[in-house]
Amino acid sequence: MTQQDNKQELQDRLDALNAQITKQGSHVRQLKKDGIADAIGEAVEQLQALKLEAATLQNKLQAGETQFNRKSFDDLILRKMFVIPSFEIHGGVKGLFDLGPPACALKAAMIDMWRKHFVLAENMLEMECTCLTPQVVLKTSGHVDRFTDLMVKDPATGECFRADKLLEDAIDDLIEKNPTMPNAEKEEHLKIQRQADAFSPTELDELLVKYNCKGPSGEAYSPSFPFNLMFQTSIGPEGTSVGYLRPETAQGLFVNFRRLLDLNAGKTPFAAAQIGLGFRNEIAPRSGLLRVREFCMGEIEHFVNPNDKSHPNFASVATKELVLFGRDDQLGSGKTKTVAIGEAVKSGLVNNETLGYFMARTQLYMEKIGMDPKRLRFRQHLTTEMAHYATDCWDLEIQSSYGWVECVGHADRACYDLEVHSKATKTPMVATEKVDPPVEIEYAKIKFDRKLLGQAFKQDQRVVSGLLDGLAEDWKNFEPIATALETDGKTTLDNFVITKEMVSWTKSSKKVHEVKFTPSVIEPSFGMGRILYSLLEHSFYTREGDEQRTVMRFNPQVAPQKCAVFPISSNAECNAVVDEIAADLMDSDLATRVDKSSAALGRRYARTDELGVPFAVTVDFETLKDNTITLRERDSMKQVRLPKSEITPLLMRIVHGKLNWDAVTKKYPLVQVDEGDGVVAESTEKGPTVVETTSRGRFRRPAPQN
Amino acid sequence: MTQQDNKQELQDRLDALNAQITKQGSHVRQLKKDGIADAIGEAVEQLQALKLEAATLQNKLQAGETQFNRKSFDDLILRKMFVIPSFEIHGGVKGLFDLGPPACALKAAMIDMWRKHFVLAENMLEMECTCLTPQVVLKTSGHVDRFTDLMVKDPATGECFRADKLLEDAIDDLIEKNPTMPNAEKEEHLKIQRQADAFSPTELDELLVKYNCKGPSGEAYSPSFPFNLMFQTSIGPEGTSVGYLRPETAQGLFVNFRRLLDLNAGKTPFAAAQIGLGFRNEIAPRSGLLRVREFCMGEIEHFVNPNDKSHPNFASVATKELVLFGRDDQLGSGKTKTVAIGEAVKSGLVNNETLGYFMARTQLYMEKIGMDPKRLRFRQHLTTEMAHYATDCWDLEIQSSYGWVECVGHADRACYDLEVHSKATKTPMVATEKVDPPVEIEYAKIKFDRKLLGQAFKQDQRVVSGLLDGLAEDWKNFEPIATALETDGKTTLDNFVITKEMVSWTKSSKKVHEVKFTPSVIEPSFGMGRILYSLLEHSFYTREGDEQRTVMRFNPQVAPQKCAVFPISSNAECNAVVDEIAADLMDSDLATRVDKSSAALGRRYARTDELGVPFAVTVDFETLKDNTITLRERDSMKQVRLPKSEITPLLMRIVHGKLNWDAVTKKYPLVQVDEGDGVVAESTEKGPTVVETTSRGRFRRPAPQN
Repeated sequence: MTQQDNKQELQDRLDALNAQITKQGSHVRQLKKDGIADAIGEAVEQLQALKLEAATLQNKLQAGETQFNRKSFDDLILRKMFVIPSFEIHGGVKGLFDLGPPACALKAAMIDMWRKHFVLAENMLEMECTCLTPQVVLKTSGHVDRFTDLMVKDPATGECFRADKLLEDAIDDLIEKNPTMPNAEKEEHLKIQRQADAFSPTELDELLVKYNCKGPSGEAYSPSFPFNLMFQTSIGPEGTSVGYLRPETAQGLFVNFRRLLDLNAGKTPFAAAQIGLGFRNEIAPRSGLLRVREFCMGEIEHFVNPNDKSHPNFASVATKELVLFGRDDQLGSGKTKTVAIGEAVKSGLVNNETLGYFMARTQLYMEKIGMDPKRLRFRQHLTTEMAHYATDCWDLEIQSSYGWVECVGHADRACYDLEVHSKATKTPMVATEKVDPPVEIEYAKIKFDRKLLGQAFKQDQRVVSGLLDGLAEDWKNFEPIATALETDGKTTLDNFVITKEMVSWTKSSKKVHEVKFTPSVIEPSFGMGRILYSLLEHSFYTREGDEQRTVMRFNPQVAPQKCAVFPISSNAECNAVVDEIAADLMDSDLATRVDKSSAALGRRYARTDELGVPFAVTVDFETLKDNTITLRERDSMKQVRLPKSEITPLLMRIVHGKLNWDAVTKKYPLVQVDEGDGVVAESTEKGPTVVETTSRGRFRRPAPQN
Repeated sequence: MTQQDNKQELQDRLDALNAQITKQGSHVRQLKKDGIADAIGEAVEQLQALKLEAATLQNKLQAGETQFNRKSFDDLILRKMFVIPSFEIHGGVKGLFDLGPPACALKAAMIDMWRKHFVLAENMLEMECTCLTPQVVLKTSGHVDRFTDLMVKDPATGECFRADKLLEDAIDDLIEKNPTMPNAEKEEHLKIQRQADAFSPTELDELLVKYNCKGPSGEAYSPSFPFNLMFQTSIGPEGTSVGYLRPETAQGLFVNFRRLLDLNAGKTPFAAAQIGLGFRNEIAPRSGLLRVREFCMGEIEHFVNPNDKSHPNFASVATKELVLFGRDDQLGSGKTKTVAIGEAVKSGLVNNETLGYFMARTQLYMEKIGMDPKRLRFRQHLTTEMAHYATDCWDLEIQSSYGWVECVGHADRACYDLEVHSKATKTPMVATEKVDPPVEIEYAKIKFDRKLLGQAFKQDQRVVSGLLDGLAEDWKNFEPIATALETDGKTTLDNFVITKEMVSWTKSSKKVHEVKFTPSVIEPSFGMGRILYSLLEHSFYTREGDEQRTVMRFNPQVAPQKCAVFPISSNAECNAVVDEIAADLMDSDLATRVDKSSAALGRRYARTDELGVPFAVTVDFETLKDNTITLRERDSMKQVRLPKSEITPLLMRIVHGKLNWDAVTKKYPLVQVDEGDGVVAESTEKGPTVVETTSRGRFRRPAPQN
C-alpha cells in the first residue's frame, strides 16, 4: 500500500466518522429540544466516543503532512504590521486588533473588488448606516432578548463567568476527586452536566449551590443573570436612552426598506448592501482575527417575491461548480460533492435560484481575490441549526490552520425581518407586483361596527381593523376567522378578542391587477476580517529549502503594492530613473514601493516578497545606456528585460486582469539572475542562451532566434 | 451709488465689525482666564452690542442676494436618499444619519481620492485601528478629564440639562419679569450670567438654588456633575473594564508610533494616516450633517524633527495661493488675504513648511473633489483658542448655508501626544537622526548611588534613574537640577524627591553621531461628513427659470454614477444596444445608470441631473442604422453625436481628468435638442446649421464644413 493510498483510506474513515458525529450531534439536540432527558445521557456518551476516535484519526492524518508554519507566519504578520494587537503599549485589550499598512491596503483592495463584483455589477443600493443603534430597533430584531448567555459574578472580586461552564467544570472536578464513585451516581451527575446549557436561571442557581460552586474569592456566586453580547451605551445626555453598537449591519437596511423600494421605483427584486463595522462583546475572544470584538462586515439584503425566487442572471453562473456539503451528506457519507449550481438548484439541494446565484457569485469573488479554491466549501445548516423562520442556509467555509471556519453566510430568511419591523412600527413593509393578465381572486368583503370596535379597543381600533383588512384580502386567510366567529361567536387575533358583532362579511370575488407581498430576504453576509485573515494564511509560503524566506502570494489585483522599484546602486543617475518610473506608476494609481537602501538586491527582493509585492523593477547601469530595466515576478522569481517606457502600460494590463505573466515571459527575453542569499532562479529556457556580464552580475538570456 | 457699490460698502463695514467682535471676544476670554471679574461685565456688554450690529448688517446684505433654496435642497437630499435620518420608522435618534446610495458612492469616491492624493502620493502608513478604546488610552490623551460639560438632572423625570445654560436662562427670566429692577441690581445679575461657564460645580449648585431653578417636574435639580461627551461602554463580561468609542482616530496612530517608526526603517519624517469613524455624544445635535454623533474622519499624523520642520516637497506647492484669515487680520481688518503659501511661510504668518505644505495640499484636494474655491478659507486659531502645547493651527473653513464651518484642522501639536503616551506607559517614543558631521555636545556624566535610590523609590528606581539619564544627555537640561542639588541639597522631579547623595555628576563633552528626539506631530484632520455635506450644498443648483429642476454639479471624478444610458423607446433592439453600452462602461468600472422607463426623455434627463450624473447616452432609431449615439453633458445640456464604440474610452479619459467637455464639443458635431419640460438648450453654434427630423425629434447640427 502506497503512502497515498494509506492517506486516502484514513481520510475516508475520518469523513465517515465526521458524518456519524454530525448525525449524533443533531440527535442529541433533538432529544434536548423534546425534553427526553432519559435518553440524552447515552446519546451524549456515544457522541463523545465518536469525537475521540475522530481526533485520533485526524492526528494520524496530519502527521504525514507539511505543517502550517505558525511561528514563521505570526512573526511576519506582526513584524510587517499586517495585524497587531490594539493599544499594545497600554497593555492591549483582548479581541481588538489594528490593521497596519499592508493589511489596510489589502482590505481596501478587497472591499473595492467586493463593491465592483456585487454592488456595481448588479446596481445594488449601497447604504452606510450608523453603528449606534437605539434599543427599540434591536429589541424588534430579537437581539436584545436572544443575544445573551447566563452569567454569574463573584460578589467579592466582581469577576464574571458563564454559569453553564462553571457547572460543567464542577461536575468534572467532583468525579475526578472521587474515583471510587459508583457508576450509577456518576451517571446522575453526568446527566446534569450534559444539560448544563438548557437549565433555567433558577435551576442553574440551585445547581451551583448544590455542587458547592464558589468564586475565586471563596464566596458563593451571585444569582445568574443574562449577559448580552452587544456593547451597550447611552445616547444623549440623559443616560436614559439605551443604545447598542450594532452586532450586524443588516438592521439598518431593513428599517430603510420603504425608502429603498421608492428609490428603486417600487420594483422588486432589488438588493441593498452595506459595508461597515459590527461589534460583539465576546466573552472569550480567541483564534486571532477569527473571533474579535470589532469587525468589518459586508452584507447584502436581496428583496424578492416569496412566490418567485428565480434570478434574472442565474443562467450566467448555472454551470459554475461548487463544493457542497449538504445536510444529508453531513449526516451520511461525511463527504462533500462537487456540483454545478444549476444542478444543485434543479435537484432541490439548494432551495432556490437566488440563493444559488449568490453562492456562485461568492465563490467567484473568493477566487478573484486569490483564495485557494481547494480550501473552500459550502456547508448547509442542519434543520436543528437554522432559525425557525429560515428556509435554507449555506455557509461558505474557508479552511485555515484553525480548521473550516464560517466566513460568508447565505441565508434565505423568508419574510421575518421586514415583518417584525413592520409590526413593531405599524408601518406597512410590502411591495407590489403587476399581475398580467389580471386574475380572479376570492376575498372577504367586510364591514365593521366602528362604534363597538372603538369601545372595545380604544386607540388600538385601527390596528385591529387593519389586521382584519389584511386577512380579508384573500378568502383563504379569512376563512378560519369566519368559521370561528360563526361557531364560537368570537376569536382572538394578536391578543385582541374579536366578537361576531364587530364585523360582518360576505365572500366575494374580484379581478386583481397587482399583488401585494412582504418580500423574502436572501442575505449573503461576509465577515471581511475572517476573509482577510484566511487570505493571509492562503497567501503565505516559504521558499523551498529556505524557511527564513517568507512570501505572500497576493495576486496583482489584490496586492497592497503592485510594484517595487530599486536602483542597483545609490548613484544619482540611477535614483533619478527610479523616481521617474515610480512617479509614472503612481500616476496610473499603481501603488509603488521604492527601496533605495544600500541592502543587497537579494535582501531587497526578499523584503518585497514578505509584503506580497508581485513585481519588482530594477534600474541598473545598462538602463542608463539603453533605457531597459529588468522586471521580476515574485513567485517564479523569473526576470525579463524590457524598455522602461513599457512598464506602466504592462502592469496596468496585468493589474486589470487583461494580461498574465506567462504572456509577458513570451514577449520579452528572460534573464537569469542570482538573487544572492543562495537562491537561484532556475532557467526553464530550453533553447540556446547567451551569458552576459553586466554591472548587476551575470545574466543568461535566450540567444537571438533569427 | 450703484447697488454693487452699496453692497461692497456694507460688506466692508461688516468685515470691520467682525474683526472688532473677534478682538473683543478674545479680550473677554483673557479677562475670564485672568479672573478679572470686575472688568468682564462691561467687556461682554460691548461684545453683545457689536454682535447685534453685525447681525443687522448681515440681514441687510443678504436681502439683496439669491437665497440658498433650502426647501428645494432638503427635499432632494431626502427624496433621493443622499442623507436620511437613521432609524426613521422607529422614531429616529437625534444626531444620527444614514447615507443612502448616491451619498454612499460619493463618499467612496471622496475617500478613494483622499487615499490617492495623500496616502499613496506620499507613501503614508495607513492604519485601521479600533473604535472601541480602553479608558487608560483616553485618560492619557486627556479626553476622560477634559471632554466634559457640567450637567444637572431633574430627579423626578431624569431629564438632563447643561447647568450653565440653566443659570443663564434663569437670569434672563428674572430680568424680564422685573422690568422695574434698578440698573445696579440688574448689572449684578448680568455679571453672574456672563461667568456662567466659569463657575465650579459647588458654585453652580449654590447659584441654581439662589435663582430658584427647578426642573420640569417642579423639583430642585440634582447637584451638578460632569458629563463626558464620549460614549461609554464596558468591554468584556465583567463590566469593570470601562471603554469608550473613540472621539477621534488619532490616538490609535500615536500608540502605534514605535511600530510605525520600525516599519519605516527608523527614518523620520514620515506620516501615518487613518480613515474611520469617530463618535461624540453631542448634547444638542443640530445643523444637519455638521454636528452629529457618529462621523467619518480622515486624519494624518506627520512625525517630524522639532528642529527641522521643512518639507521635501514644499517647492511643489510654494506658489499655490490660499485665502488666509490670520490672527492679526481677525483682530484687525477683518479681511482675508490671498497669499502664496511660500510667501506665508517665509513671512512667518504660517509657522513652518510642513504645516504650510499640508494646507496647500488640502486646498488642492478640495478643488479636486469639486468644492467651490471661492467658498474656502483658512482661519488661524487665536492664541486664546489654541491648546497650550500647540505651535500653530489653521482651520480650513467651508462656507455653506450654515456660515463658515471648520471642516479640516491643521495643527502643529508639537511633542504633546507622544510625550503623554510615553510617560504613561514608560515607553520611549523617540526617533533618531544622524548628525553628519558629528557635533560636540556638553552633557552631564552621572553616577547613581543605587542603594540609596533603591531604598527611596523601591520599584520606581528605574523610572527615576531614567528621568535623570534623559536630562543628563544635554547639559542645558541637567544644569537646573545640578544647581538645585548644589544649593538646596535636593530637588523634585515628577513628584520624586531626589537628594544630593543619590547622584553625582561631572560636566563633560562628547562627539555625537546621532541625536534622539521626540518628534513633533503636524496633524491635518478631515471631517469627512462635513466635507460631504458642504460638497452637496456647493454642487446644488436649480436650472435658470425653473426652480423645480434641481441639479447636482458633481464633477466626473467624484460623481457617484458617471453615465446614464437610455433607449428612446422600449423597443427590444434599442434595449439591446443600451445593455451593450452599459455593460461596456461597467466593464471599465464606470458606474452606469440605465433607465428604460417609459418616462419622457426630458423627465429621464431631469432624474439624472438630480443625482449629479454628468453624462447621458441616448440610443435612438438612428443608432440602429449607423451605430451613433448622442452624449449629453449635464450642466451645459449640450449634446454631441458620436459612434457608440467611442463612448467608453472617451468617458474613461474624462473621468481620469485627461480630457474635458470643451474638447469633446470640438471633436464631435453638436446636436440641438428640446429636452421637453419647457427647457431648450440654446445653440451656441455660429456657423450654418442643418435641421434633421429623426425618430427622437428635431435636431439641429452644424452643416458639413467642406
